[in-house]
Amino acid sequence: MNIAIIGLGLMGGSAAIDLKKRGFAGKIIGVDNNKLHAETALHVGIVDEIATLDEAIRQSDLIMVAVPVDSALKLIPKILDRIKGQAITDMCSTKEMICRLVKYHPKRKNYVAAHPMAGTEFSGPWAAMSGLFDGKAVIFCDAEESDIRALATVRRMYETLNMRITFMDSTNHDRHVAYVSHISHISSFALALTVLDQERSQKHIFDLASGGFDSTVRLAKSSAEMWSPIFEQNAENVVQVLETYINKLKNFKDAISEGDRARMDDLINKSNKIKKILK
Amino acid sequence: MNIAIIGLGLMGGSAAIDLKKRGFAGKIIGVDNNKLHAETALHVGIVDEIATLDEAIRQSDLIMVAVPVDSALKLIPKILDRIKGQAITDMCSTKEMICRLVKYHPKRKNYVAAHPMAGTEFSGPWAAMSGLFDGKAVIFCDAEESDIRALATVRRMYETLNMRITFMDSTNHDRHVAYVSHISHISSFALALTVLDQERSQKHIFDLASGGFDSTVRLAKSSAEMWSPIFEQNAENVVQVLETYINKLKNFKDAISEGDRARMDDLINKSNKIKKILK
Repeated sequence: MNIAIIGLGLMGGSAAIDLKKRGFAGKIIGVDNNKLHAETALHVGIVDEIATLDEAIRQSDLIMVAVPVDSALKLIPKILDRIKGQAITDMCSTKEMICRLVKYHPKRKNYVAAHPMAGTEFSGPWAAMSGLFDGKAVIFCDAEESDIRALATVRRMYETLNMRITFMDSTNHDRHVAYVSHISHISSFALALTVLDQERSQKHIFDLASGGFDSTVRLAKSSAEMWSPIFEQNAENVVQVLETYINKLKNFKDAISEGDRARMDDLINKSNKIKKILK
Repeated sequence: MNIAIIGLGLMGGSAAIDLKKRGFAGKIIGVDNNKLHAETALHVGIVDEIATLDEAIRQSDLIMVAVPVDSALKLIPKILDRIKGQAITDMCSTKEMICRLVKYHPKRKNYVAAHPMAGTEFSGPWAAMSGLFDGKAVIFCDAEESDIRALATVRRMYETLNMRITFMDSTNHDRHVAYVSHISHISSFALALTVLDQERSQKHIFDLASGGFDSTVRLAKSSAEMWSPIFEQNAENVVQVLETYINKLKNFKDAISEGDRARMDDLINKSNKIKKILK
């Protein structure tokens, strides 16, 4: 089948590579406002051709929206207006606002709200890679609002990407990702700011980077273009999680400043329980 | 040369493996209060024999202390009392208090304060591995207090472990590691606590763990036995860094709850500067 991919960055580009390689996609038609991204994607063979949005919709059986969530909010209703019977899906990290926005659209059933939980801290078609999605989870939101055919197409697409499919309503989805993804990014951004503020000598940061800092700060390389709109759209959940997180940090601060070893041990032992959940 | 390694966990065990394999160590004599650790280390061949502390000191040319910092504070002066002319070094993550404690010890010159910046979130002889130290930094503190022979021996040992040697005074060392190592661990512990508090359904945590959470929370598997004493000994620096970190998080919280996109962008763009420093 022909697939239109709108947004040729890390996510759209990586999907394009594996959907083609694994025989799911016939022709891949790319759309990107950023001319350099579009030309690069064509040049390195991520897409078969570059087209306008209308041309891409006309030619495709499946439309994948892989742009930041603020652009997706504008784009998805516009695409729904124009499609005939094709399935459309997106890869955005927040789902509640999009689902609310299209709830009463006459072609709502053609849209499958999905969130593939994969990524790296890099962006653009240069970051696209085979295998990005393998073994990770994809969450289908409010799936009862999509028709069976659209759902089956998008499902086969994610199965081709070797993802584990989970179903959740969009409100629960946004609350959960605030905990397990959005907060991790804020934690990393704030950590980077803390160290950059204090460590004037970059030499020292480099020399001392072996101490665990590199893994906790990795996500701080992620772009504002992608993440500010996520925080904006998931503000209520993210602020609530941030409050809990700040309170936990204050617990540590109090225990340490009071030299309360038993309380430090207790906090660390409790946090170690995460071992049982993550491998 | 014969090396006594006191503490047969991740750090001491990993050093033993490579020092033997790479021909630096003749016999490795292990000492550990924990009988299971000692027997395991002997059984899997990390050490050549297990001995009492006195026996190990008597037989060795170099003594490596690889125990949590609270035990090291008690152990290092005791070993200095008993050695003849051997070099002694340790692997602890805080250095100021130890250096202050032995400053006027008659055999201070035999002691080389060093901090190899390497590790994983695992512990015990089971976690010991070849290559743990390769390419990482080791910080020698207050090196002018050590004599040339002891320094040369410990230096050759860390060169065998393929570490980059950096020199720093112990006060600066403790301030720097608060920023680039200790805060990362607290950030991770607090993140784990936040998620564990809220996500009752462990199924969801697992499914959603693809979103960056796994890398930021990795360090939360680290043990209280090792980390509480570090926070205790580096309390002043750690509390100061925690205050800065909490303030940065509050900046994010304010920007997000006010929907201030420009401020979110600004915070993220500034934090992205960490890219220039870390690879």
